Amino acid sequence: MPRLRLALVQMNPVVGDIDANAEAVLAQARAAQAAGAQVVVTPEMALNGYPIEDLAYRSTFIAASRAAVQTLASRLAEEGLGDLVVIVGHLDTAKTGALANLPDRLGVPKNAPTNSASVITGGRIVARYDKHHLPNYGVFDEFRHFVPGDETQIVQVGGVDIALAICEDIWQDGPSAAANAAEAGLLVVLNGSPYEAAKDDVRLDLCARRALEGQCALAYVNMVGGQDELVFDGDTIVVGADGELIARSPQFTEDLLVVDLDLPAATAAMPEPGTRFHGLRVERTIISAEPFPEAGEPLRPLPAERWDDLGERYQALVLGLRDYVRKNGFSTVLMGLSGGIDSTLVGAIAVDALGAEKVFGVSNPSAWSTEHSVGDAAELARRTGLTLDTVPIAPIFDVYQEALHLDGLAEENLQARIRAVIWMGLSNQQGHLVLACGNKSELATGYSTIYGDAVGGYAPIKDVPKTLVWELARWRNAWAASRGETPPIPENAIGKPPSAELRPGQLDTDSLPPYEVLDAVLDAYVERDLGAAEVVAEGFDPALVERVVTLVDRAEYKRRQYPPGPKISRRNFGRDRRVPITTGWRESL
Amino acid sequence: MPRLRLALVQMNPVVGDIDANAEAVLAQARAAQAAGAQVVVTPEMALNGYPIEDLAYRSTFIAASRAAVQTLASRLAEEGLGDLVVIVGHLDTAKTGALANLPDRLGVPKNAPTNSASVITGGRIVARYDKHHLPNYGVFDEFRHFVPGDETQIVQVGGVDIALAICEDIWQDGPSAAANAAEAGLLVVLNGSPYEAAKDDVRLDLCARRALEGQCALAYVNMVGGQDELVFDGDTIVVGADGELIARSPQFTEDLLVVDLDLPAATAAMPEPGTRFHGLRVERTIISAEPFPEAGEPLRPLPAERWDDLGERYQALVLGLRDYVRKNGFSTVLMGLSGGIDSTLVGAIAVDALGAEKVFGVSNPSAWSTEHSVGDAAELARRTGLTLDTVPIAPIFDVYQEALHLDGLAEENLQARIRAVIWMGLSNQQGHLVLACGNKSELATGYSTIYGDAVGGYAPIKDVPKTLVWELARWRNAWAASRGETPPIPENAIGKPPSAELRPGQLDTDSLPPYEVLDAVLDAYVERDLGAAEVVAEGFDPALVERVVTLVDRAEYKRRQYPPGPKISRRNFGRDRRVPITTGWRESL
Repeated sequence: MPRLRLALVQMNPVVGDIDANAEAVLAQARAAQAAGAQVVVTPEMALNGYPIEDLAYRSTFIAASRAAVQTLASRLAEEGLGDLVVIVGHLDTAKTGALANLPDRLGVPKNAPTNSASVITGGRIVARYDKHHLPNYGVFDEFRHFVPGDETQIVQVGGVDIALAICEDIWQDGPSAAANAAEAGLLVVLNGSPYEAAKDDVRLDLCARRALEGQCALAYVNMVGGQDELVFDGDTIVVGADGELIARSPQFTEDLLVVDLDLPAATAAMPEPGTRFHGLRVERTIISAEPFPEAGEPLRPLPAERWDDLGERYQALVLGLRDYVRKNGFSTVLMGLSGGIDSTLVGAIAVDALGAEKVFGVSNPSAWSTEHSVGDAAELARRTGLTLDTVPIAPIFDVYQEALHLDGLAEENLQARIRAVIWMGLSNQQGHLVLACGNKSELATGYSTIYGDAVGGYAPIKDVPKTLVWELARWRNAWAASRGETPPIPENAIGKPPSAELRPGQLDTDSLPPYEVLDAVLDAYVERDLGAAEVVAEGFDPALVERVVTLVDRAEYKRRQYPPGPKISRRNFGRDRRVPITTGWRESL
Repeated sequence: MPRLRLALVQMNPVVGDIDANAEAVLAQARAAQAAGAQVVVTPEMALNGYPIEDLAYRSTFIAASRAAVQTLASRLAEEGLGDLVVIVGHLDTAKTGALANLPDRLGVPKNAPTNSASVITGGRIVARYDKHHLPNYGVFDEFRHFVPGDETQIVQVGGVDIALAICEDIWQDGPSAAANAAEAGLLVVLNGSPYEAAKDDVRLDLCARRALEGQCALAYVNMVGGQDELVFDGDTIVVGADGELIARSPQFTEDLLVVDLDLPAATAAMPEPGTRFHGLRVERTIISAEPFPEAGEPLRPLPAERWDDLGERYQALVLGLRDYVRKNGFSTVLMGLSGGIDSTLVGAIAVDALGAEKVFGVSNPSAWSTEHSVGDAAELARRTGLTLDTVPIAPIFDVYQEALHLDGLAEENLQARIRAVIWMGLSNQQGHLVLACGNKSELATGYSTIYGDAVGGYAPIKDVPKTLVWELARWRNAWAASRGETPPIPENAIGKPPSAELRPGQLDTDSLPPYEVLDAVLDAYVERDLGAAEVVAEGFDPALVERVVTLVDRAEYKRRQYPPGPKISRRNFGRDRRVPITTGWRESL
C-alpha cells in the first residue's frame, strides 16, 4: 500500500486578516515540509477565518481572497515548497456554469460566494472543491452567504486517490457516499466546527461512521480559536478505513499533526471525469501516480489526551476571552469585582487567559455591601495577583438621589449603573476592555441591570448557567491543587449564598427559584426548546415553570443589548436562539 | 365573465398573539360578509404575525397555530359566515410525504414548520398551500425556519379558478408561471413584505409583471404594523390581467379593501389534480362552480393616495414606534431632549405616534450646554405639548470626578452616561420606555457614547442618516403648515450646526466630515455594500473614504448593543447587515 505523510494544520485564523492567515499557512507548510510531509491540509476558510458573515458579499473581500490563493501558490513554489500538495480553505466565487445548475428556489447571494478548498502544487491551483451542504441552522447562516458546489473533486497524490469535503458535507448524507463510489482511499475534510460541550465525542463517532461507510481513511482538520460568540476547539482527527482512531490533536491550542497513512492504491474503478455520481459531476486531477518512497515504521503520534467535561468548558472560556481581547487590539481587561462567585470566576478566567498583570478589578462597595464581599474580592486579588482598585459609590449615589428620589427597583438599579459608569470611565481613560460578569441563568431570567452590571465589551460566562459557575470554580481550584498551585478562587466565594447586595439582606432566592431547579427548567425551555407543557411533563411544578418561562420571554430585550460571549452549550443566547422581542406568545399549561 | 367580490384584509397582527390575531380575522370576515364579499384574504402568517423567528420551531406554538385555524373555521360557520371563502396565512407543519421530496442539501428544521395559507369554507379547511420560495437574504431567514411546499393549489370559487402564492413566491420565477399553465383567472398573494423607501413602486411593477405573465388578475395583500426592526406598510394592491392598477389600500393603516373583479370562467384546460406543472404537484378544489349572481356596476374603490417619499418614511417611523410601544405593553416614552435636531425629531415622532400626554422629555444641561439648546428643547415642548423636565448634571459630574479624575474623551463620555443613568432611573421609577435618539450616520461611525446617549428600548431614527433627519424635520413642519397647524419643530433646531456639547465649542464637524459628504460615502459603503476602492471610484476623496470606512468597521461592537429601531432603508444595521465584530479585514485603496 502506498504511504502518505499528512500534515494537518490546526490553526487559529483571524476573520478578515487574509495576509496574516496566509503567512500562517505558509509557515505551517514550511514546518510540514521539514517534517517530511507530502500533503498539507488547513481548516475550512483558513485564509478568511470563520464565520465571515456578510463580508462574504463584499466584492473587494472576494477579490482579495482569490488573489491570496494565487499568491500563496507562487510563494510556496518560490520557497521550494512546490512539491507539497497544499489543500487550503478560502472564500471564492462560483465557477462559470455552476450558477445555472442551482435550484430555482435558491436566492443567489450577490457575487455568488463559495466556501471553497483549493489544491495547490507546483506553484499552481490544480483543483478547487466548493462546499455542497450549507448549514443554515443553529449558529450557521451559510444559505445566506454561499452558493453550493455541484462537483466532487478527487486528487491523486503518490498513487492514492484523495476525495475532498468541507465540514457540513460529512454531517449530511452524500459526498462521503460519493467518495466511496469514486473508490477514493482517503477523505480529507476541512472544518470550521465550533465548540460545544462534549462535541468531540460526537465528531469522533461521525468520522468513524463516515470512514466505514466510505471504506476509506478520513482526515478531519478543524480550526482553533475564538471569534465573537464562537470558540473553535481544534480536535483534529484521523481515523482509518475501519473507523478506528489513528491520531488526534489537543484541544484549544494550535497544532501541526503529522501522521503517516498506508492507503490503498488508486484503482481502475475510479469513475471518469465528467461523469456523475450521486448527482455530482466527478472531477479528477492526477498530481502524482507513483507511490512516494517509504522509510521504515509509519509516523504515528499518540492521540492527544482530552480535557474532562469541566476542564474542556473552562478552557473554551479562557480561549474565547483571550482571542476576543487579542484579535480586537486590546491588551488589558477591567471588571467589577463584587466578591460574588460570578465576577470571581471571570477574574480567574481572565488571569488564565491574559496573565495577572493584564487584569484590573474594581471593587465598588455600597451601603449594602457586606464585609465578606469586599474581603473576598481582595482575597481573589491576593491569590491571583490581579490589580484591585476600590471606588465606593455612596457619595455618587447620594447626589443622584438628591435630584431623583428613586426607590424600590429603580434605586437598586441606580447603584448598579453608578458602578457601570465608573468602570466605563476607567476603561475609556486607561484603555481596558470591560468584562460583563453575568451568567446564563441571570441572562435567561433578566436578573441583571441593563446598563449596570450588564455593561462590557465581552461577557465570558454568559453561556454558563449558575450551577455550572460553581462547578467550574471548584474544578479550577481542584486543577490548581492537583498541580501544587494555589487555588485562585476563595472558598468563601463558592460557598456563600448568592446576592446582588443592592438592598440589606438581599438574596437571589428572594427573586428566583433555587438555582438547581431554575437551571434544570432553563435547560428544558432554552437549550432543548420545549414548550411549557412539555417542561411540566418532565416533573416540574407548573407554577414555577410558568414563572420561569415568563421571565425568560420578557427578558429578550435585555439579551439583545448584552455583550457577546463564548458559546459552550448546545444553544446559546445570540446566534443559536433567535426570538422576537415583541411577542404576544405565552406558553400555556 | 363571472364576478367575484374580494375582501382584502390589510391587518396588523401581533407576533405570537394567535388568539388576538384570530379574533381580528373573524371581525374582518364579518365586515367582509356585510360588504357582500365572497372571498376574504389575509396577509402571510396573519394568525402568527411575521417574522416569528425561532418560535417557528416551538412544538407548542405550531400546535396552537394549527388548532387556531380549526377553531377559526368552526367559529366562521357558527357565526353564519360559513359561505365565505377565507384564505388565511399561518404557521403549520409539513404534510406527510412532503419531507421525502426535499432536496438532500436542505437541513430540515425541527418539527418541519411551513409558512402556509389555508382555505376555509363551510366550517372546514378545504385546501392548504405551503410557501415554495423561502427568502434567506436581507432581513429574511426563512430557510432557517421553514421547509418549502411542493404543491400548487387551485381553488374554484363562483366558477373562477384561483391560484395561491405567498410573498417571495412571486419575487422568484415559478409559481406565477405555474398559475398561467394552470389557466387560473386570479392569483391571490398573501404577503409579509416589510417597508423600505420607495418599495411600493417596486411592488406595483412586480404585481403588474406577474399578472401579465400569468394572464390573470392578481390580488396582493400585505400586512401593516411594526415588529421589532421591521415596519409593514400595507400597500395592498389589485391589478387586472392587463397589469393595470385596479385598487390599492392606503399605507401604514389597517384597511379592508373590498373590490369586484370580473374574471374568466374556469376552463377545461385546467390540468388534472395530481399531475405536475413546473415540478409542482397540482391540487385543485372546487368550492363552487356556479358564478355568483351579479348586481349592477362593479364595486371599484378609488386607489388610495400615496404619501410622498419623505412623508412615507416619516409615517413608517411613527408606526414603528407606536407599535413597539403598544405591542410591548408600554404606554409612555421618555427621552433626553438636548435641543439638537435628532432628539427634537424623535420628540415630534413620539408625539405623532402616541399623543403629547404620553411623551416625557428630560433636559440635562451641563457646563457646556448652550443657552439655545435648553431653549430649543423648551420650545419643542411648548409647540407639541410634551412634558419637559430638567435635571442638571453638574453636581453629579463633580462628585464622579472627585473619585475618577477623567479627562478627554473619558470625561466627555462621563457626561453622556450620567444623563443615561438619570433617564433609566426615571424610566424604572415611572414606567416609561426610553427612546435612544441616535441617527444612522452616528451609528455608522460610532459617534455616540455606549451606555450614554445610546441607551433605550427603541431607537426611532437609527436607520435615518443625518441629512435625512433634517429633511424629515422640514417635511414635518411643512406638512403641519399645509394643514394650518403649528410646525412642531423649532426652526433653530433645524438650522444650527450639530454639536454633542460635551466640551466648549464642540461641533460634529470637528470629528466627522460634513454630513452631506459623510452620508453619500455611507450610502455607497453601507447601503450598497461597495468596497472602499469602488467608493473612491465614484469620485470621493481617498483619504476621506478610508477614514469613514475605518470608523464604520470599528464601531460594530457599539451597534450590536444598540436598541432596535425601524428599518426604512434598503440596508439597515441589524437584520440586514450582519458583519463580525472581530475582523482584521481592512478595505485597501
